Parts: sequence; C-alpha cells; structure tokens
Amino acid sequence: MPLSVREIVLTHPTGPAGDLDSLVRCIEECLACAQACTACADADLAEDDVVEMRRCIRLCLDCADVCDATWRVATRLTDGRSPSLKKVLEACLDTCRHSRKECERHAPHHEHCRICAVVCKRCEDACQALIDET
Amino acid sequence: MPLSVREIVLTHPTGPAGDLDSLVRCIEECLACAQACTACADADLAEDDVVEMRRCIRLCLDCADVCDATWRVATRLTDGRSPSLKKVLEACLDTCRHSRKECERHAPHHEHCRICAVVCKRCEDACQALIDET
Amino acid sequence: MPLSVREIVLTHPTGPAGDLDSLVRCIEECLACAQACTACADADLAEDDVVEMRRCIRLCLDCADVCDATWRVATRLTDGRSPSLKKVLEACLDTCRHSRKECERHAPHHEHCRICAVVCKRCEDACQALIDET
Amino acid sequence: MPLSVREIVLTHPTGPAGDLDSLVRCIEECLACAQACTACADADLAEDDVVEMRRCIRLCLDCADVCDATWRVATRLTDGRSPSLKKVLEACLDTCRHSRKECERHAPHHEHCRICAVVCKRCEDACQALIDET
Repeated sequence: MPLSVREIVLTHPTGPAGDLDSLVRCIEECLACAQACTACADADLAEDDVVEMRRCIRLCLDCADVCDATWRVATRLTDGRSPSLKKVLEACLDTCRHSRKECERHAPHHEHCRICAVVCKRCEDACQALIDET
Repeated sequence: MPLSVREIVLTHPTGPAGDLDSLVRCIEECLACAQACTACADADLAEDDVVEMRRCIRLCLDCADVCDATWRVATRLTDGRSPSLKKVLEACLDTCRHSRKECERHAPHHEHCRICAVVCKRCEDACQALIDET
Repeated sequence: MPLSVREIVLTHPTGPAGDLDSLVRCIEECLACAQACTACADADLAEDDVVEMRRCIRLCLDCADVCDATWRVATRLTDGRSPSLKKVLEACLDTCRHSRKECERHAPHHEHCRICAVVCKRCEDACQALIDET
Repeated sequence: MPLSVREIVLTHPTGPAGDLDSLVRCIEECLACAQACTACADADLAEDDVVEMRRCIRLCLDCADVCDATWRVATRLTDGRSPSLKKVLEACLDTCRHSRKECERHAPHHEHCRICAVVCKRCEDACQALIDET
C-alpha cells in the first residue's frame, strides 16, 4: 500500500494537534474519494447512457475538487490545525453526500458508481468524525 | 486581460442559473486569490523574517487550495448550480478571512502581504455576495 | 480586472529571475485556460450532442488540471525558477494543443469551444515563449 | 486501505488501454507523493532550521501540484489514454527527482524528509515504468 499518511504525520514537529486516527483516516479517505470521483466521472462519460449520467459526472467532478482541497488543508499542521478546518470538512461532507446519492441511483447498472458511492460514504463518515472532534 | 469568464459563462447551454454578475465576479476573484496566496506564501518563504511568516505561509497555502476548488465548483452549471455551492463558498470565505487577517499584520513591512490582503478581501466580498443570493 | 500577477511578482524578495513579462503572461494565461477548459468541459456536457463531445470534455479536463499545476509552479520564485519549469511548460503546451485542436473541430457549432480554442492558443504561445527563454 | 484505484479502473467501459498494473501503480504513487510532499513542506516549515529548508519546501510544493495533475490525467481513460500522458509523466518524474534529491540531503536530521524521499523515489519509478510502456 502506497499511502504513508500516518507515518509522515507522526514526524511533524508539532504533532497531529488532536486525535491522530481521525486525522489520518480523513486525509486517506479524501485522497481515495478524489481519485474514485475523478475515475467515476470519466467512466460515466464513456457509458452508452452518458445523457442520463450528466448530473453524476458533474457532482463527481465537484466532489473530487473539494476532496483535494480538504486533504491538503487537513495535512497542514504548522501552527496547529487550520482555523478553517471545520468549514472545509462541512463543505467536503456535503459534496460527498450529493455525489454518493447520485451514484447510488446508478449503482445497479454501473459498477463504478457502486464503488464510488461506497468510497464517498467512507469519506463522509471520516469528515463527520473529524468535525465532531474539531 | 486574459480571463474570459463572463464570455464563456454566457455561452453555457443552461445559462448562469441566477445573477450573472455575482457568479462571474466570484469565479474571477477566486482565481486571483488562489494565485495571490500562492505567490505570497512563496515570497514569505524568501523573506529574512521567514520564522515570523510561518503562520502566514500556511494560511495562504490553505486559502489557495480552497479558492481553486471554489472557482471550479462555481464554474460548473450543468444541471444548475452545485447543490454544495453555498457550503463551499462559506469555507472559501473563511479561509480568505484568516489569510487576509494574517497578511494585514505583515502589510506594513511586506508589500506582497499588503497586496494579498486586498485580493483576499475582494474574494471574501465576492463569496459573500454569491452566498447572499444562493 | 481582478488578477494581480504582475503586481505581486514585482514584490518577491528574489525578483522574477528572468524576463518579467513572459513569466507574468504565462501565469495569467494558464489561469485563464484552466478556467476556460473547466467551463468548456461543463458546457459540452450540457449540449444535445454530448456523445460527440466526449473527447473534447476529457481533453479539456486534462488541460485544466495541467494548467493549474503550471501556474502554481511558475509562480514560485524562492531559490529561483523551478528546475522542472521547462518540462512542466512542455507538458502544459501539449495538453493545451490537444484541447485546442479538438475544440476547433466543434467551434462552428459551439461558441464555448470557439472561445476555449482561442484561450488555449494564447496559453500555448505563452508557454512556448517562456520555454524559449528558460 | 482506502484507495480503490484498481477496483474502479477495472470497471471503466473502455478498459485500462494498456498494462493495468503500471497504470494503477502510477496513479497510487502520485496520490501518495502529492500527500507526502504536502506534509513534508508543512513539517519543514515548523522546523527550527526553516531557513535551511526553504528550497526543500518549495520543491515539495511544486512536486505535490504536478503529482496531483498527473494522477488525474492518468485516471482518465475515455477515448484511450491521454495523448499528453508521456509529457505529463516526464514533468512529474522530474519534479519528484528534484524534490527527492533535496529531501535526501535533509534525511539524516529530518525523518519526514527521509520518508518523503522514499515516496518520491517510488513515484519516479512508477512514472518511468509507465513512460517506458507509453
């Protein structure tokens, strides 16, 4: 497994500034969700029913962009966690939720949507856990 | 001037889905703020008093990442504006505000911080205007 | 006009490390192209002939991502220009060229493709000018 | 492990358009490297010897941005692999190499630099393997 999130957070001079597990999990799930949503949007585009997948493509692209910003903000620990972390996590949770709900509608006929919905749900849970603690 | 935000939004098959001016302004200011914060963080790093600039660097990097996600989400209009637009704008406004307040502290001795604070303030105002309307 | 690229580059403690005009122009055009390609991909998705626009959507999304990385790398001047700047510019020029050529095919029937092709061409020229100097 | 790169690539309607293993590995390593470089730059910033870490911070920030663009371009498979994939991989390999070499200099006294150098090297190898095949 390539991610070294926990390993490198542990070496930060100021430490994780709160619970290590929920921080690491949130960063990992945002990375996974950014990639899954980028892949799902691209797979949707190649499907025969692309016309029905427009909303899914768009929501997945939004979600990928917000997940990317979120893991970057969550990763920075100099001077403590970001003062904007909670609001960024709330935005991320919301984009994941919309992306997941649309993917769930297409999960029965598109396997990439089924996988993407699972990854989005994990990311929502990880964002919520970090919000609860922040 | 290179930005063609208004020109290209006007050609979208579904239209701006609300007030055109506030949407265009928000996209333009997020682009400007992402660049100004990236430049300010880098200039801070090269200053003699880099030790005092750590918090500024970190807040500017956060702000650049969230601004980048925000102009991308705001740009997408297929199936209407993003259902997450308001929460994304709120996160963006918050990162801009923190970045601006820190830059204002250094504005008397670092011209890049003075410029960056002005750009952040414009971005805050543009996000707020789009929030009020959404 | 919101961009303050020139203004803020001029305040960097180490200066532009080469010709100021070509650096500023490249950063500005990459920002404009990232936004135009994001907008064009989204507008393509909403068109009646979305099936014919798949390749255009995909190339525009690639181009937006590479342009975003490029203006960020070009903006950083601490310790001089990036040792990877030339290779990053070559990658950016290539994604712009592919995106532009596909957009030109659709320019007669989609105004957003016509605009996007113009913006891509300007970005290619700005990348080439900075490559020639680097 | 949160990444689902292989799982979701396997469900793409057009397939991986070449060797699956090298594509998946490259996407995974770029994600890992983008995160490790973002974390390393932030940890460098919090160190007592931040003045000596300026070049490392800057190269790591460049590398993170290019890795992010690279995994996104590599992920898109609609209409086949990106025509710009090779040039994007070459730029990514180059930013990883510069970031790794600087991190190696600091590895004896900064554990995050040691880890980051290892992750950069893995990403270089994954990019090279995909270049060789493209």
